[in-house]
Amino acid sequence: MNNLKSIADLQVLLHKALQKTSFVAKPAELYEPISYILSLGGKRLRPVLVLMATDMYGADVNAAIPQAIGIELFHNFTLMHDDIMDAAPLRRGKTTVHEKWNTNIGILSGDALFVKAYQSIVKTEPKYLVALMDLFNQTALEVCEGQQYDMNFEKQERVSMSEYLQMIKFKTAVLLACALKSGALVAEASAKDQQHLYDFGIHIGLAFQLMDDILDVYGSQKDFGKQIAGDILCNKKTCLYIKAYETASVAQLQVLDYYFDSVDFPAQEKIEKVMEVYEQLNVQSLCKDMMDEHFAIAQTHLQDIEVSEERKATLQEFAQLLMVRVN
Amino acid sequence: MNNLKSIADLQVLLHKALQKTSFVAKPAELYEPISYILSLGGKRLRPVLVLMATDMYGADVNAAIPQAIGIELFHNFTLMHDDIMDAAPLRRGKTTVHEKWNTNIGILSGDALFVKAYQSIVKTEPKYLVALMDLFNQTALEVCEGQQYDMNFEKQERVSMSEYLQMIKFKTAVLLACALKSGALVAEASAKDQQHLYDFGIHIGLAFQLMDDILDVYGSQKDFGKQIAGDILCNKKTCLYIKAYETASVAQLQVLDYYFDSVDFPAQEKIEKVMEVYEQLNVQSLCKDMMDEHFAIAQTHLQDIEVSEERKATLQEFAQLLMVRVN
Repeated sequence: MNNLKSIADLQVLLHKALQKTSFVAKPAELYEPISYILSLGGKRLRPVLVLMATDMYGADVNAAIPQAIGIELFHNFTLMHDDIMDAAPLRRGKTTVHEKWNTNIGILSGDALFVKAYQSIVKTEPKYLVALMDLFNQTALEVCEGQQYDMNFEKQERVSMSEYLQMIKFKTAVLLACALKSGALVAEASAKDQQHLYDFGIHIGLAFQLMDDILDVYGSQKDFGKQIAGDILCNKKTCLYIKAYETASVAQLQVLDYYFDSVDFPAQEKIEKVMEVYEQLNVQSLCKDMMDEHFAIAQTHLQDIEVSEERKATLQEFAQLLMVRVN
Repeated sequence: MNNLKSIADLQVLLHKALQKTSFVAKPAELYEPISYILSLGGKRLRPVLVLMATDMYGADVNAAIPQAIGIELFHNFTLMHDDIMDAAPLRRGKTTVHEKWNTNIGILSGDALFVKAYQSIVKTEPKYLVALMDLFNQTALEVCEGQQYDMNFEKQERVSMSEYLQMIKFKTAVLLACALKSGALVAEASAKDQQHLYDFGIHIGLAFQLMDDILDVYGSQKDFGKQIAGDILCNKKTCLYIKAYETASVAQLQVLDYYFDSVDFPAQEKIEKVMEVYEQLNVQSLCKDMMDEHFAIAQTHLQDIEVSEERKATLQEFAQLLMVRVN
């Protein structure tokens, strides 16, 4: 059995594999945006998860690289199209594709990138292909569903916590879960282990998204690198927002409605008043409990996987690294 | 060997298979546009081509149905995204998806429909899957490239005939070729026959598109169902336009530039003056020659296929039906 590889080792492997994937072709208007979005970097979490899962079983990570690259390309495709739908000017601090070029190019380059994802996946050993494709296709549909729910929520007056969890599960968690299960599939892990890895991915994904919501309001600006409480300013229906509405008294509801029904307040006043209610209702702590709960469920799934504790070390480390910011 | 099926038989088979493919799921905003665009009908040319090719070899057409459906879903996905890019208000006489809902829904429903195409393809017998996917992915990329060239041409001052043929090859012909080759692949036809069918598809596709350009100007309104000479009115760089620019004298160039550089003319005057130059230059006949040439090349590829003439009857009939409008 191979020695367990570190996250850094796997990132190097992936980096090399991605560099070998060429996106230089004509017409330039179609392919340059693909090279551009991939050049913006990112932590390559999802493809690293594929390889970590394969490596946990001591199987050859090279066998999982086409699927890992496919998932990373798919992720970047969703970013390109999501940025159009969200009218986002920036992605990773750089101009988004539809802003740098135009919307049509963002749509069409995204489509081409999606095909490129499948071109990578189909390079996997054929005996795994049907199972990998079924998993990937199902996940891709769920990611679309998650994005649609997210857009629906903007216009929906009330969003329940269960609706919210379903949305972040589809929009974020399922792709992490798919990545892990894909790696296990290529390693020929048992169906039970594959499911535990999938569930580990789901709950780590949920915990991560809940953490993201909390940090938007309670993280320090320096650590988080975003405007503090941007979610409050743009009335985003986050975990904190939903929890506050779930638990507020009539008087508190009035304050929340007053500030969320309009954008005509000085930013500082709006943030302070909403955070006052959040504090009265203890929503930070309630949401942190939810986050901790999902993190704990993820841990039990990792424990239940039938490989030695040593071989789980990289995934353990990964989970800790992801969550370190609020734990 | 099975009896050769008629085009009508194959259309019925396909219709049933498409009806079994369910697009009823949540969220409705994502899936209703898919059901909607499929309900607009169309002749289902591409999936019928898949089945015709399989049937020509006497193989079981049911084995080709997942690929046929996949290609039809892909085609509808491209229509959904193309209509956004072209800002088209109507598709088959009905409101386009992005007009009926909105652009974001058009983008995301299209993406989901693209996944649905792959979900169908992956249902094919696994032994054909890698070859079918490779062919399909390559084709899908080329279709994106064709659409990008088409958009580029709008801003490009001069388009050569070879650039134009490359564009229509990618935008239209390769998917017909892919459909035919897919059917042959599932029938386990020889590599040589697969290539002949592919080339038959390319040249029939080119002939069809050239015919479309000619009919826009020279078809009768009743038969063609579109505004006559709409291409002239909106300065579209068609085969006729390009041929005219290729062959015009300095004086004729001045007339063409005068009318194509502006939109500020009464429609009738613009059409008449441009058609006058077209007539002087004999472009209708020159383009018809190009069309006939591609139709003839298609025929030779069909002749070279190693099956009996009787089993080629449906494809022969199809080719005649496609071109009947100007022949």
